[in-house]
Amino acid sequence: METVSENACFGGVQGVYKHASDACNCDMTFGLFLPEEAKDGPVPVLWYLSGLTCTHENAMTKAGAQGWAAEQGIALVFPDTSPRGEGVADDDAFDMGQGAGFYVNATQDPWAKHFRMWDYVGEELPALVAKEFAVDASRQGITGHSMGGHGALTLAMGLPGRYRSVSAFAPICHPTASDWGRKQLGGYLGDDEAVWAAHDATLLMRESGFDGPILTDTGTKDQFYKLLNTHDFAHAVGERGQQANLRLQPGYDHSYFFVSTFMEDHVSFHAEALYAG
Amino acid sequence: METVSENACFGGVQGVYKHASDACNCDMTFGLFLPEEAKDGPVPVLWYLSGLTCTHENAMTKAGAQGWAAEQGIALVFPDTSPRGEGVADDDAFDMGQGAGFYVNATQDPWAKHFRMWDYVGEELPALVAKEFAVDASRQGITGHSMGGHGALTLAMGLPGRYRSVSAFAPICHPTASDWGRKQLGGYLGDDEAVWAAHDATLLMRESGFDGPILTDTGTKDQFYKLLNTHDFAHAVGERGQQANLRLQPGYDHSYFFVSTFMEDHVSFHAEALYAG
Repeated sequence: METVSENACFGGVQGVYKHASDACNCDMTFGLFLPEEAKDGPVPVLWYLSGLTCTHENAMTKAGAQGWAAEQGIALVFPDTSPRGEGVADDDAFDMGQGAGFYVNATQDPWAKHFRMWDYVGEELPALVAKEFAVDASRQGITGHSMGGHGALTLAMGLPGRYRSVSAFAPICHPTASDWGRKQLGGYLGDDEAVWAAHDATLLMRESGFDGPILTDTGTKDQFYKLLNTHDFAHAVGERGQQANLRLQPGYDHSYFFVSTFMEDHVSFHAEALYAG
Repeated sequence: METVSENACFGGVQGVYKHASDACNCDMTFGLFLPEEAKDGPVPVLWYLSGLTCTHENAMTKAGAQGWAAEQGIALVFPDTSPRGEGVADDDAFDMGQGAGFYVNATQDPWAKHFRMWDYVGEELPALVAKEFAVDASRQGITGHSMGGHGALTLAMGLPGRYRSVSAFAPICHPTASDWGRKQLGGYLGDDEAVWAAHDATLLMRESGFDGPILTDTGTKDQFYKLLNTHDFAHAVGERGQQANLRLQPGYDHSYFFVSTFMEDHVSFHAEALYAG
């Protein structure tokens, strides 16, 4: 693992690190914020998964998360959204290929060789972070934005016991039923829609739910609102009687101005779960 | 004036606007955050001047200022750092020309035609903002980063009575005595160093000081520390007995990770002055 940069930030350190990923079969870069408390021992950790077109850097510089994480004494991890590099397959569209990994393990060509973001974010990177940094793997929460909200919800429900809390900003909630989803799931996983179900938050909510609290925020003026299927997830949450706080925020759109506005609430929400018991 | 974009943000609106500037003789773009309170009447306003290479956008997306401004009910203005466009002179160096206006009125060719950032930030844009938006021109504060910290300090001392409070992040404090300064002041203003004095915070502090409180933060690991001449400004503040809080922050560098860390303090500092009396 190589240190790309480290900057003092809110009493802690905002680092960027690069490592050879087995899951993705290429070099991967991630951001990690460690609060001051990490000097004294392992701290809880909150994962932030980004949306389409983002790298590890967008949320790290624009979400305003570090101040709240510092206040709560928790670490933040900002993974990339896909494998990258010259030898890695890509697509001219912004919503497929590099920058658009969709948090699945691709089984179809040309993606299968590198696009294994489920294993990367769910297994390989957590192991690396726990080994190299003072984070407490027994206290993990996960959040994300848009495609990253989809990733957060599906990982949280798909890996029971791993995360104590899950939240999301404008998550893609029902990708098997929208253009942000059918295209990517078909491209990465093939035509058998039964396989897609493991990567659809609404279907997972109907099937199993999440053993812990959920918080979501979505703007009523989100320019991609019709692609998110917020209503389907809300319906499934209601049917299950899942512990959840699903918020629709008047006037907000899909931007980081929206994300940063509600970041304090999300970090506080996770901190409460991560410090309980 | 043309609206480029408006995003809901912390209960208010983060806008970007474009207008034909008389001072700069070209179109100029600026960011403006209006808190919710602006719906009910004019609010105090804090100017944020950016550093070398920045546009109106950097601080608007990376400084984490809107949340604190919303909490205090004050507006934020993010001007660009220079005139821009095809017909505007430029230089291959990052620290001259477009993105490097240095907050002076250039008198030398090829700069004199457009590079009048002192008039633009000190006169034209305040008049436009006061005319078009619910801001209270009698309650203005100013801050900035690096070259923008230089701009904030020199405008504050150069326009007595205009700003109630001034602060700066890693300001260039004594440009007539460093490479970040002599090059730009010579290029824009010519060889007569007597003319430069109006654009040097240390010389202005020796000469006249500021009728109000000053706050500055500078990181002890700032990679440009030797170009800032923090010690000269501190010496002048001490000699004058100027009301000031000059802070050196251990471990911090020149980045927005540093700026965002101390943004809450700066916004609170200005709010106290802007709401007094």
